[in-house]
Amino acid sequence: MSEKFEQGKPLAELHLGEAGVAAAKDSSPELLNFVVEHGFADMYTDDSLDQKSRKIATIASLVTSGRLPQLEWHIRGALENDLMNKDEVKALIIQMTIYIGYPSAFNAMKVANNVFTEF
Amino acid sequence: MSEKFEQGKPLAELHLGEAGVAAAKDSSPELLNFVVEHGFADMYTDDSLDQKSRKIATIASLVTSGRLPQLEWHIRGALENDLMNKDEVKALIIQMTIYIGYPSAFNAMKVANNVFTEF
Amino acid sequence: MSEKFEQGKPLAELHLGEAGVAAAKDSSPELLNFVVEHGFADMYTDDSLDQKSRKIATIASLVTSGRLPQLEWHIRGALENDLMNKDEVKALIIQMTIYIGYPSAFNAMKVANNVFTEF
Amino acid sequence: MSEKFEQGKPLAELHLGEAGVAAAKDSSPELLNFVVEHGFADMYTDDSLDQKSRKIATIASLVTSGRLPQLEWHIRGALENDLMNKDEVKALIIQMTIYIGYPSAFNAMKVANNVFTEF
Amino acid sequence: MSEKFEQGKPLAELHLGEAGVAAAKDSSPELLNFVVEHGFADMYTDDSLDQKSRKIATIASLVTSGRLPQLEWHIRGALENDLMNKDEVKALIIQMTIYIGYPSAFNAMKVANNVFTEF
Amino acid sequence: MSEKFEQGKPLAELHLGEAGVAAAKDSSPELLNFVVEHGFADMYTDDSLDQKSRKIATIASLVTSGRLPQLEWHIRGALENDLMNKDEVKALIIQMTIYIGYPSAFNAMKVANNVFTEF
Repeated sequence: MSEKFEQGKPLAELHLGEAGVAAAKDSSPELLNFVVEHGFADMYTDDSLDQKSRKIATIASLVTSGRLPQLEWHIRGALENDLMNKDEVKALIIQMTIYIGYPSAFNAMKVANNVFTEF
Repeated sequence: MSEKFEQGKPLAELHLGEAGVAAAKDSSPELLNFVVEHGFADMYTDDSLDQKSRKIATIASLVTSGRLPQLEWHIRGALENDLMNKDEVKALIIQMTIYIGYPSAFNAMKVANNVFTEF
Repeated sequence: MSEKFEQGKPLAELHLGEAGVAAAKDSSPELLNFVVEHGFADMYTDDSLDQKSRKIATIASLVTSGRLPQLEWHIRGALENDLMNKDEVKALIIQMTIYIGYPSAFNAMKVANNVFTEF
Repeated sequence: MSEKFEQGKPLAELHLGEAGVAAAKDSSPELLNFVVEHGFADMYTDDSLDQKSRKIATIASLVTSGRLPQLEWHIRGALENDLMNKDEVKALIIQMTIYIGYPSAFNAMKVANNVFTEF
Repeated sequence: MSEKFEQGKPLAELHLGEAGVAAAKDSSPELLNFVVEHGFADMYTDDSLDQKSRKIATIASLVTSGRLPQLEWHIRGALENDLMNKDEVKALIIQMTIYIGYPSAFNAMKVANNVFTEF
Repeated sequence: MSEKFEQGKPLAELHLGEAGVAAAKDSSPELLNFVVEHGFADMYTDDSLDQKSRKIATIASLVTSGRLPQLEWHIRGALENDLMNKDEVKALIIQMTIYIGYPSAFNAMKVANNVFTEF
């Protein structure tokens, strides 16, 4: 593993949980490698935004794009590592209806509700 | 104007600036009415998320969906009312490359850079 | 339940069926509340468009955005409450290929075919 | 010109206006050829849906996908050939907020308002 | 079957495999008819691009739009008929991260990995 | 400039042209840096796909996502550096109608036609 991977891995695990990183590796070790080195090591380490702000931004983006498997891991990581609580996640999904409408929000809330049962 | 509109209007102005609300009214008074009553009065008043967090979520969503005229007003409102500073906006757009790729991020950064020259 | 919810509920049930409204409530009572008050009570009651026209517009939008769980409920409601028949739904999905291509249309037709077996 | 093109051309002109068809030809004669033969001749001639219903579906789809140049021509054709009036177009765009949110609706309404000044 | 369908069918089978064409027919004979006549007969027969180039373009488009059932059939057809090999498909999906981000790429790679086990 | 940037820069210039890379730098030096290091140095150097195949994939993706400023630079780079000729670009855009419909294809063809006048 590269030095950059080692630098980004803790941030990836903070946001996706250890199980989330393992699942991503299982799905594609090459893509995991790139996203940890490029995304988490190079971008998430810029202190202009704290990790809670980055989590909010990521969830907003994934609700908007409808990429639900990733949304699930990012909500799980948020709750597991106390970056956000359930009420914050719900308020965020509700706010998104203004920008992308109700169907995307309902689909996201279903994912969130499933994760909520684990906590 | 309805009571709900009066309740939501200050939050709309906090996020879009007074000129942004005026521009939205000019574009469609009906849509402005609905978004202030439904969005800002009904949803942005839930204290689960503070207004800075809501701003971050909105910008992330608009960068993701590529709705650039609205992105422009939301960045302008963020800087005008000190919800975010320029470095935070830039770090947020850069983070979005992970989730939606570089073309959307470049287009958003161009909008942001134009707004930055006003401040 | 608010007065507005009571006003919008029959229109929500006309379009989604009673089971559809119940499923939406199960998924998120907050989102159902907002969509009934904001969407069905405030917007669907404007007589400029009749309910069949609104149904056509909704299905066209959901086929375009690929939000399939909502498409399923809206097709079911259309057939259940005689807003559209099967041939109209099929012709609408086929027309959409011009505007969004074949993959989205095939995915929508699969959803429609499943609902068709219930009627 | 093929027989199929001759068959589809009046329907293309009904929906886009003669100027709209000319503009499309100017932009790409090959694409115009294909869309008239495949879209208007093969699909719009199915009587399951009348031309007003097809117009509503098309506008809903274009508002949803944010393809604004085509939206402009389709609204112009709707008003020019009395398929829809201004109030119907406005009500349709407002309804779309439920399914795709306010930014797309504002952008569409701006296009519509510009076309409205011609009539 | 029309002459045009007969002309396009071998190209449809080259790209989707015989089972893919059968599955599409099962899903919607009307849509299959149109896509074979309009897409494969009218467009894929233009020699400006060879069939491998067209396959690359299709997979890039489907990864970008996230239309995963079609992506699956197009990857299967690529491997079955030697238009692309596994390494090429993987490199293509990885390249797409630049243009659309990691979530879409991960979802596509999962589809690809499932198809890879058949070969 | 980092070693990785130096490694990726010639590939970025092959695909976007020198003027395209300069324009991207002008728009955002940070984003250019990341896309050259992560995209062109790390991903485009994998020999599984040759540069013409990568160009085809990129144009297909940008036509699909409707990111037109980037499409313009990528078509210009393709013609400038003989990765594709005009007929190939046109055939590719026409093929995309199958997967994403005519509006996106018309918008892309307009961009392409403008670039074609330079060559």
